[in-house]
Amino acid sequence: MLIHTIAEVREKVREWKRDGLTVGLVPTMGALHDGHKSLIEKSVAKCDKTVVSVFVNPIQFCPGEDLDKYPRTLDADEKLCTDAGVDIVFSPSAKEMYGEGHIMSNDFLTYVIPPYFYADKLCGKSRVGHFDGVCTVVNKLFNIVQPDFAFFGEKDRQQLIILKKMVKDLNIPVEIISCPIVREESGLALSSRNKYLSEDDKSEALVLSKILFNIQACYKNGITDVRALSETAYSYLNERHSLEYLEFRDADDLEEKTNADDNTVVFIALKIGNVRLIDNITLRNLC
Amino acid sequence: MLIHTIAEVREKVREWKRDGLTVGLVPTMGALHDGHKSLIEKSVAKCDKTVVSVFVNPIQFCPGEDLDKYPRTLDADEKLCTDAGVDIVFSPSAKEMYGEGHIMSNDFLTYVIPPYFYADKLCGKSRVGHFDGVCTVVNKLFNIVQPDFAFFGEKDRQQLIILKKMVKDLNIPVEIISCPIVREESGLALSSRNKYLSEDDKSEALVLSKILFNIQACYKNGITDVRALSETAYSYLNERHSLEYLEFRDADDLEEKTNADDNTVVFIALKIGNVRLIDNITLRNLC
Repeated sequence: MLIHTIAEVREKVREWKRDGLTVGLVPTMGALHDGHKSLIEKSVAKCDKTVVSVFVNPIQFCPGEDLDKYPRTLDADEKLCTDAGVDIVFSPSAKEMYGEGHIMSNDFLTYVIPPYFYADKLCGKSRVGHFDGVCTVVNKLFNIVQPDFAFFGEKDRQQLIILKKMVKDLNIPVEIISCPIVREESGLALSSRNKYLSEDDKSEALVLSKILFNIQACYKNGITDVRALSETAYSYLNERHSLEYLEFRDADDLEEKTNADDNTVVFIALKIGNVRLIDNITLRNLC
Repeated sequence: MLIHTIAEVREKVREWKRDGLTVGLVPTMGALHDGHKSLIEKSVAKCDKTVVSVFVNPIQFCPGEDLDKYPRTLDADEKLCTDAGVDIVFSPSAKEMYGEGHIMSNDFLTYVIPPYFYADKLCGKSRVGHFDGVCTVVNKLFNIVQPDFAFFGEKDRQQLIILKKMVKDLNIPVEIISCPIVREESGLALSSRNKYLSEDDKSEALVLSKILFNIQACYKNGITDVRALSETAYSYLNERHSLEYLEFRDADDLEEKTNADDNTVVFIALKIGNVRLIDNITLRNLC
């Protein structure tokens, strides 16, 4: 069932809770792919009722980013959700979520701000304010849907870590379930932004997973020095790849590592043309 | 019943909700007086169950403020609550609320930040970060207790307006009930900080309400020009009063007024010695 208003989704959830049913929420920006589908399936399997929100959240886009051209495929998203057994697709307008005017302004809007130590690095460095927008909208969605469980992909692992921290810091009564990255057979991590890639770009995009898999293999073979592990990346890169970061950080608190261990995540971001891609891998997930 | 842990209060509330009972929350910093009592009585009358939180919240005190010497009277507070029919007095430690270390640091703690336009004026001007701390702790308390209603006094009216804005902006499923200021017969608004006043200071402190009542009387008599209304204040002040602000603002969005109307609130803050006192009056509440 497609619902556009906060009042309607609240009414539905209230009925479910009255009947003692558990509720799962899968927050998305739409353009759903098999990565989202894996989150949705996990929620449908775990919870009595599942809500998928589809909302391209303006306040998490920075100036110059792809808010206007971000892919919007609501009909297909709704079909994917229905086929997967979703109970409600919640697709509000920006006006429904933020009211008339005042969007993207912390002069007139209450924000939920993650700790600087978590948000000022990795993607937060180039996407200033991005995680403020993410925390604020997820907090709103939690308050609207009041789910028991919320499902997020490890693809956006910094986001996942920040949201877990938000839930802990603000005592939010929601359990966050993290879901593994879904990859094409080639290794490429699924992302809505892959739609921006030409066939040619797409084969260039394989470097992200190649670099990560190779680092994982080296770690498995006993190399733990982060500098040495980083060095292995450069042989994969060419002039079409503009590397933004390759960093080794703790899986829980994002502390930087000089020596890798099982709790280390390797984060990578690079641009191919105008398309910014991210990926990451946990070293303990040895394949 | 006095409870110190988040887990216990959650368990109790869960039982109540299972039985379909409504829950009221009265957040306080303790040192309860008849002002708090009026909030508590309102909650007890309106809700099936009432929780009073007693927590001197470190992150809403600014450097140099009275965190350490803020009055703490838990035994008396508990008695007042029990006598008034409160079901739970929730008195957590700072460690229970914020964990070990990291207190007062937005490097390591997720904050809820009210809009600058609401928080940068009046008390927010001298108490930088104060309302960030208030919004964050109230958000936490809302998530812990999940009340249907929360009761706040109009004494801290800027706080009340900011918390209503927070609830609206973040879609928090709590209704905020505002409760009128309780005054001594002399006119002095009740405040936990009145305990800091000597008898002599206390009679000096009457200027706050005298100024406000006189402005209200002038407004009733047809004066609406804010400059003229402000001028009337100065005849009450002497060298023992250090005026911090006297401002005329909209009761809903704190916009400044040049002409007073029924929706105008007059805000005043001044120091007597080291004791900072605040008061306010809505012009429409004609006595």
